[in-house]
Amino acid sequence: MSKNGKIYVVGIGPGKKADMTFKAYEKMKNSDIIVGYKTYTDLIKEYFPNTEIRSSSMMKEVDRCLEVLDLAKAGKNVALISSGDAGIYGMAGIMYEIINENDDIEVEVIAGVTATNAAAAIVGAPIMHDYVTISLSNLLTDWELIKKRLELAAQGDFIVSLYNPKSKGRATQIAEAQKIMLKYKSKDTPVAIVRNAGRENEEYEITTLENMLDFEINMLTIVLIGNSNTYVKNGKIITPRGYEKKYEY
Amino acid sequence: MSKNGKIYVVGIGPGKKADMTFKAYEKMKNSDIIVGYKTYTDLIKEYFPNTEIRSSSMMKEVDRCLEVLDLAKAGKNVALISSGDAGIYGMAGIMYEIINENDDIEVEVIAGVTATNAAAAIVGAPIMHDYVTISLSNLLTDWELIKKRLELAAQGDFIVSLYNPKSKGRATQIAEAQKIMLKYKSKDTPVAIVRNAGRENEEYEITTLENMLDFEINMLTIVLIGNSNTYVKNGKIITPRGYEKKYEY
Ligand SMILES: C[S@@+](CC[C@H](N)C(=O)[O-])C[C@H]1O[C@@H](n2cnc3c(N)ncnc32)[C@H](O)[C@@H]1O
Ligand SMILES: C[S@@+](CC[C@H](N)C(=O)[O-])C[C@H]1O[C@@H](n2cnc3c(N)ncnc32)[C@H](O)[C@@H]1O
Repeated sequence: MSKNGKIYVVGIGPGKKADMTFKAYEKMKNSDIIVGYKTYTDLIKEYFPNTEIRSSSMMKEVDRCLEVLDLAKAGKNVALISSGDAGIYGMAGIMYEIINENDDIEVEVIAGVTATNAAAAIVGAPIMHDYVTISLSNLLTDWELIKKRLELAAQGDFIVSLYNPKSKGRATQIAEAQKIMLKYKSKDTPVAIVRNAGRENEEYEITTLENMLDFEINMLTIVLIGNSNTYVKNGKIITPRGYEKKYEY
Repeated sequence: MSKNGKIYVVGIGPGKKADMTFKAYEKMKNSDIIVGYKTYTDLIKEYFPNTEIRSSSMMKEVDRCLEVLDLAKAGKNVALISSGDAGIYGMAGIMYEIINENDDIEVEVIAGVTATNAAAAIVGAPIMHDYVTISLSNLLTDWELIKKRLELAAQGDFIVSLYNPKSKGRATQIAEAQKIMLKYKSKDTPVAIVRNAGRENEEYEITTLENMLDFEINMLTIVLIGNSNTYVKNGKIITPRGYEKKYEY
């Protein structure tokens, strides 16, 4: 039997305890240490007043995982947290990449509500049909590949959910993405812009593909772009389940 | 002030209370009636022994929503439940489609952990990068459109999550989907097949695109197909976050 601790990679959901799963809460509560990027540990620290919490700065993901590994090797049970779901642009992958067979450490991922689903619930039912999730961050992915994916997603009449749409140092991608979408999708396609889903200062607008750049889009924004059947009713954005023979192919 | 009840469209997560959000639990607990397809009400009824629960058979989604609307108009607060997230191939869209402006009924969607995220957490970290969600059910969507989407998804080197991969009356689509994937993705691409994620009899296999049809795929299965960077290590399936300049475009 190994004396090592266990690593839980926990998706905390969009932010509030209400949107957390029971298992995520239990695993954090019963861990010796909770580790995560400061923005996320700040979101949850009030729920775990008796647990040691270590926060780190962004861009230090690998260091954070190595620290977690060391803690587990020292016998601690550690909860490494991500916002939303840890398996969607979160910490799960890096943690597994770093662990080696002979480390003899057990890792468990605890699924959470990802930003797409949290944002969709706020604005109605926009993603009821096939959809694509794309990150506009070109830090680790060539912009050419991202553009190709945007192009294919628009061609396929997929609903599109954009993560990391814009940051201080990266402002042009969202306009390029809009332009690509407009090549295939109607300018009237409904678009939802959701900021701080499930957090303080939650805000959203329902607009169109043509006008989406008129609204604030930042690091904490999800942009949801409808398919050819998406419509707006009573202030909610709705994509019908099926194409019910309306689609011309 | 309206005397009408409120409708909560609740995503219960994959099945167990552990994977439910606190808000989903609270809304069900505090509703007068919980309504849903029998498989789902069976999953949750033990948690709400004091709440009236009405179950209906499949394929009767519109009738179920009309019943919920009538109940709300009679002043009842109703929780209409879906497995996973109600906004992903669930009840949220139909409920909104049915409600009219002059119904004066408030609808709130409560996000949940969808099958993709539940399945991914079980097998490692397969969906750490851009991905596509496609339903193989051609009940309401032309098969030609679904095939086109599979084609575009494979071309874009997206990770692919397949919902409704196979049912008793619909057995050929999954083989066609595999064939399309093989046109663009390597036959060695890691594939995860997850049955009954988060439920009794949870089972999974990690295999390859070439061999995926050797395993049981049924109505309660999610099929996750990796991108060109996905690999298997220590029995877990991992997609690195970025392409770290490995991708030839
Ligand atoms: C590195 S990704 C992390 C995603 C996270 N693991 C998830 O599953 O939601 C960060 C991006 O997720 C989106 N995001 C995360 N939380 C959000 C929230 N509460 N509201 C809106 N967008 C959010 C934004 O697009 C942000 O740029
Ligand atoms: C009509 S869709 C409902 C999806 C659900 N609203 C969600 O968000 O997970 C039904 C399909 O979802 C998938 N699914 C739902 N729950 C699952 C589970 N616990 N394990 C594996 N697949 C599941 C299967 O592909 C199934 O055919």
